[in-house]
Amino acid sequence: MFSLTNATTFEIVAIWCVLLIAFLGLGYALLLRKQIMKHDKGTAKMQEVWGAIKLGADAYLKRQLRTIVPLIVVLTFVLFLSVYVVPPSEEAMRRFAGKSEGDVKVIIGVGRAIAFVMGACFSLMVGQFGMRMAVEGNVRVASASTRSFGEALKIAYRTGTITGMLTDGLGLLGGTLIFMVFGIAAPDALLGFGFGGTLLALFMRVGGGIYTKAADVGADLVGKVEAGIPEDDERNAAVIADLVGDNVGDCAGMAADIFESYEVTIVSGLILGLALMNMNHGELKWIVFPLLVRGIGVLSSMVGTYLVRGSKDLKNNNAMNSINKGFYVSAAISLVSFALLAHFYMNEWRAFLSVGVGIILAIVLDEITKHFTDTHYRPVKDIAAASKTGSATLILRGIAEGYESAVWQTIVIAVTIFTSILIYNGMGVNYVLYGVAMTGIGMLTLTGNNVAMDSFGPISDNANGIGELAGLDENARKVMDHLDATGNTTKAITKGVAIGSAVIAAVSLFGSFLTDVTKIQAQMKIDEVLRLASTGIRVSEPKVFIGVLIGACIPWLFSSLIINAVTRAASKIVEEVRRQFKIPGLMERKVKPDYQKAVDICTVAAQRELIGLALVGILTPLVVGILLGVESLGGFLAGVIVSGQLLAVFMSNAGGSWDNAKKTIEDGLYGGKGSEAHKAAVVGDTVGDPLKDTAGPALNPMIKVMNLVSLLAAPVLVQYKATDFGMITTLIICSVVVVVSVLYSKHGGFTFLKGASNTKSKSADM
Amino acid sequence: MFSLTNATTFEIVAIWCVLLIAFLGLGYALLLRKQIMKHDKGTAKMQEVWGAIKLGADAYLKRQLRTIVPLIVVLTFVLFLSVYVVPPSEEAMRRFAGKSEGDVKVIIGVGRAIAFVMGACFSLMVGQFGMRMAVEGNVRVASASTRSFGEALKIAYRTGTITGMLTDGLGLLGGTLIFMVFGIAAPDALLGFGFGGTLLALFMRVGGGIYTKAADVGADLVGKVEAGIPEDDERNAAVIADLVGDNVGDCAGMAADIFESYEVTIVSGLILGLALMNMNHGELKWIVFPLLVRGIGVLSSMVGTYLVRGSKDLKNNNAMNSINKGFYVSAAISLVSFALLAHFYMNEWRAFLSVGVGIILAIVLDEITKHFTDTHYRPVKDIAAASKTGSATLILRGIAEGYESAVWQTIVIAVTIFTSILIYNGMGVNYVLYGVAMTGIGMLTLTGNNVAMDSFGPISDNANGIGELAGLDENARKVMDHLDATGNTTKAITKGVAIGSAVIAAVSLFGSFLTDVTKIQAQMKIDEVLRLASTGIRVSEPKVFIGVLIGACIPWLFSSLIINAVTRAASKIVEEVRRQFKIPGLMERKVKPDYQKAVDICTVAAQRELIGLALVGILTPLVVGILLGVESLGGFLAGVIVSGQLLAVFMSNAGGSWDNAKKTIEDGLYGGKGSEAHKAAVVGDTVGDPLKDTAGPALNPMIKVMNLVSLLAAPVLVQYKATDFGMITTLIICSVVVVVSVLYSKHGGFTFLKGASNTKSKSADM
Repeated sequence: MFSLTNATTFEIVAIWCVLLIAFLGLGYALLLRKQIMKHDKGTAKMQEVWGAIKLGADAYLKRQLRTIVPLIVVLTFVLFLSVYVVPPSEEAMRRFAGKSEGDVKVIIGVGRAIAFVMGACFSLMVGQFGMRMAVEGNVRVASASTRSFGEALKIAYRTGTITGMLTDGLGLLGGTLIFMVFGIAAPDALLGFGFGGTLLALFMRVGGGIYTKAADVGADLVGKVEAGIPEDDERNAAVIADLVGDNVGDCAGMAADIFESYEVTIVSGLILGLALMNMNHGELKWIVFPLLVRGIGVLSSMVGTYLVRGSKDLKNNNAMNSINKGFYVSAAISLVSFALLAHFYMNEWRAFLSVGVGIILAIVLDEITKHFTDTHYRPVKDIAAASKTGSATLILRGIAEGYESAVWQTIVIAVTIFTSILIYNGMGVNYVLYGVAMTGIGMLTLTGNNVAMDSFGPISDNANGIGELAGLDENARKVMDHLDATGNTTKAITKGVAIGSAVIAAVSLFGSFLTDVTKIQAQMKIDEVLRLASTGIRVSEPKVFIGVLIGACIPWLFSSLIINAVTRAASKIVEEVRRQFKIPGLMERKVKPDYQKAVDICTVAAQRELIGLALVGILTPLVVGILLGVESLGGFLAGVIVSGQLLAVFMSNAGGSWDNAKKTIEDGLYGGKGSEAHKAAVVGDTVGDPLKDTAGPALNPMIKVMNLVSLLAAPVLVQYKATDFGMITTLIICSVVVVVSVLYSKHGGFTFLKGASNTKSKSADM
Repeated sequence: MFSLTNATTFEIVAIWCVLLIAFLGLGYALLLRKQIMKHDKGTAKMQEVWGAIKLGADAYLKRQLRTIVPLIVVLTFVLFLSVYVVPPSEEAMRRFAGKSEGDVKVIIGVGRAIAFVMGACFSLMVGQFGMRMAVEGNVRVASASTRSFGEALKIAYRTGTITGMLTDGLGLLGGTLIFMVFGIAAPDALLGFGFGGTLLALFMRVGGGIYTKAADVGADLVGKVEAGIPEDDERNAAVIADLVGDNVGDCAGMAADIFESYEVTIVSGLILGLALMNMNHGELKWIVFPLLVRGIGVLSSMVGTYLVRGSKDLKNNNAMNSINKGFYVSAAISLVSFALLAHFYMNEWRAFLSVGVGIILAIVLDEITKHFTDTHYRPVKDIAAASKTGSATLILRGIAEGYESAVWQTIVIAVTIFTSILIYNGMGVNYVLYGVAMTGIGMLTLTGNNVAMDSFGPISDNANGIGELAGLDENARKVMDHLDATGNTTKAITKGVAIGSAVIAAVSLFGSFLTDVTKIQAQMKIDEVLRLASTGIRVSEPKVFIGVLIGACIPWLFSSLIINAVTRAASKIVEEVRRQFKIPGLMERKVKPDYQKAVDICTVAAQRELIGLALVGILTPLVVGILLGVESLGGFLAGVIVSGQLLAVFMSNAGGSWDNAKKTIEDGLYGGKGSEAHKAAVVGDTVGDPLKDTAGPALNPMIKVMNLVSLLAAPVLVQYKATDFGMITTLIICSVVVVVSVLYSKHGGFTFLKGASNTKSKSADM
């Protein structure tokens, strides 16, 4: 099975060890699950609330599966058939030397298709299994909080760790397996793996984001604002949908998102490593190093996460400190091991520096996110203060701070790339890009801890919701309040890492695109002058500049469509809750509202948008590539990355800062809850919700889907001319599908076909 | 004086004619002024209000002059001395053949310095004179409205036309004069001319934008929202500042902005035309054509604007139709003349097609702007409908629509560039860029009409304000209401053209940058492989990608700083008006408020931000250019253009749509004035105000300042290495100044030096 002829014994053993570590990580996740499931689920009332959440979560997951599977099946075939349009790579022929070209085609085709399905399934597993565990965990945290702070913390964090270890284990497993089977031909199949994971992440992010904010905004608008009842009040028909939404968005969506970055960085790390291997007389170390770094990361996450615990009493205890302790232990183990690896295996320190930059980058991005969204710093304080003159000034302040945060975060990314230039000074573009990929891998070293911290958020939040709805005692509520507040912080921190790693991953993919196209062009003996290697991607070429312009538009279009989808769905929730409020006896708590109705509305609304937006993501690069050529497609990708990064950070941080400005006011500032300042802050928070939890996060996978599609399509685009009959047909079909998809997403269905008057009345709902 | 040895008789006569037309335009402006000044200024009460506006306007203009002049003086010297760092261009040596290199240096240095001063002064004249005329006009419009609709319309439109003809005349005069004196060496001096105009436009836009919105937002917040008194109420101390602000922002700011686009397109048209001339055996037609197109445009504007009139009675009359009639007449004259020119002079139709695309582009951009911001289309209707569920949903809808509008507008720009590629199919980059420049020139053909339409807005608005404050009769108010509403439409239309032309102008400048750097590199005998001509600007080079990232940040940083400046200044206005409300007798209209105090606050606040932001605009390209090299600087410019375009359109259109959503509600929708829907819409309008009238418009000149600085600095950057002592010193000084300027702008002064606690209390004002 293992196919690297020039591997040293150490390398062979090491790779087997990495595979073992992947299984260890998965085993650890199963072990934790067993531990968690043993804990009790509390009172009957708690279980009743929890049952509704579980039902809603299951319904969402099932329906999502039904929507996605057809597209996955179609794409699996497309990926298999893609090898028949372009010949297998030189590496593939070398790897399977002795076999006929036809056989190699079948092998690569099948391999790529299987890798795609694997990427998709792994991502789905991380999302679905993680979310189911979060639902299992939340009621147990609520129950444990009546007994002991330490127990509640442990259950909440360890439930989160299950998702973390799944992300780690499956990500490592997939990459390592493909590498072991395909050897130097790994990139051929890895692209499929990356694409599968990224596409699923896009689905989870878009679907989860729309679901969670439709429920949240809808419930708030009609409950808090119109009817004047508190949040999480049982009379609000959307309250369960809101709790389900936290899991769907923060748990499934975020986990799939980080899994995808984790996966994609290893994909681009291996592609770029392979280029260096070819430049360095077949030295395997350039590809083995990233795998080893990943393996070490998983091990240290296992140790670190296990250490997170607290004592029985809440006093003198702080959940954040415990979680941080675990993080620092993991970080220390990783850094020492990386240094040893660099010194004894790589025989050079550059790779270590690149990985180290990644860890520093993660910390710096955390700090920036904290500065702009944490209640302890100037920006949020200023935004809260602006509430004194009303919601307009509060929103303006938030926009200004959000803009600024996007600037600093982008400059940090620019500095990171510059550092890579300095580290590989004078060694050429390939090394610099490899350095950037290693930085991405370094950033995601502690993915296990990060995902655990992130999932901890919705688990504690839901536990608190169950506590409210089931009327738990004050002591338990205090414990859960503390966990909930800590969860908000950990969630915010992870968000910074998610966006940052998405951009670094996208830049690495962009680098892989360049390397790949160049390689294919060389293989196809395309005239040296016309090769991307010699021309590069020149924005000074008007065609390429057009590519950049169009690419830069895409994140704005995407965000616009998604925000509208949320407001559309939220308006339906508002109608439904209003309708139920009128049911006699409901407001007097004599009759229960029909929670599942609201859950259904959110589920349907979220699924409806998936396919349209995914098609825009998949097909736009093809349209640009066929119409304007492969160089313009490079410009397009650069435009997508740059504009996507700025817009995503702006939306995430502005939203986060409004959220926290509202919280500081609720904690008593400027008159506290119910004051005019509070009302202003609620408006800001509601504006920020779809920005920070739907549109912003959806841009991460969107950027990468486009990069991966371009990578997959590159060989075709290089080989065929835009004037070929097949290409023209493809162009026309893709263009039509993109336009129809945009119209479909814009109008939330095919209502636009029924004439303008209908559309108007339809969209005037909100 | 005239120095083109190979010009045909027709060309010599034609250029003299163009010069004559420039003077004709200016003469026409003076004639109109004389006509306007003859009309009477109405009652004593009207003149009293008007006097206060005039005083405020004068104060602003004087103070602005004082702030700007020192920087202008310094930059004039820098521009003169710049020729001593780099040798004069080959063309300059050829033009002044027979003179020693030292003499040529002096000639070019002096020429460039004078051109810079000329550009700055012309821009200042357009802004200041135009604004003074607007102030003279508004009271006369108010007075005329008591007598006849036709007279009021004529005065308002013709006062606007004065600014329009100044823009036309001065823009044409400057470009033609420089061309006549310097001949083929014109680009050496033209850059100075362009830079002067652009820099002043930046000042006018930033200063005017901050002034107008600080006054507007401040007056609204404390008047309408807090005290519950109507807009334009005489008890509001900020009411005069608000009226002055309309002139400062919409009149002076917009006129300077369009003047600058007008100027810059001719600068890049001549630079790119020169490149074609050199490629075509010295054919002069490539440079003469744009000048002739401009001349024809001015003539047709004169005819068209003169035709705008209405009858005595308002009934069966429509101001918009009359204005449009004038526009169409101008357009028809232009198109026919361009066709003749193309056929008989250019002997080819490509140039005509490019210019024609420009006119179509202007119309398409108008339509897009209208679609997204006009009350008759779906977006504004949807936004207004969203007010039913509160301000949050209204704002979200506006953000989504604004995002989308940015997408379409950017795609139209992309299509325009693509059209240029098609027109000059297979002829190479130089022709394509020339085509883009001609499109820009085509777009601005009817600048006279456009600026007239734009200035018409604030003139009618102010007339209406004077009418309200002076208590004119109902009939007159109806006339002025009609003119005011028409003015809002014409203002919105011009805004679309202003942004679109800014981007096209920036793309042409970007093209000039490429052409110029290539030429200098050839002249300096830099190794062919290293020349930009062969490498292009490769985003695939990590350094260049960093340039793109940083460039893309700048518009976001700029917008953030400007929005904060507005909110800071508005909070000062709020305090001042509140203070004055407490003066005994003021609320009972027994005591007059001190209007000039509010005017002073706005004036000071607007001036304070000018220098800091201008320095960021001027020095950032230098920092990037020195640190990362001339290719990265190219990437930087591409980043600035692409990201600036998207952000500017988003902010302008979102703001415009909120404004009009409020207006439709005020016209009776969803409960009309005073309803909950109206309150929600007021919040949206207030959020949109600084976006659409300050940050958005300021990005136009900012983008071009950066392009022009890069063009000016290119020879230095190409000649010296980053390791030279002089370059390192410059780099350090520039970096420090940029950082200090950003901090200064961020904190509205040097308060940040006094420690964090001070800053906090300071910025917590708002």
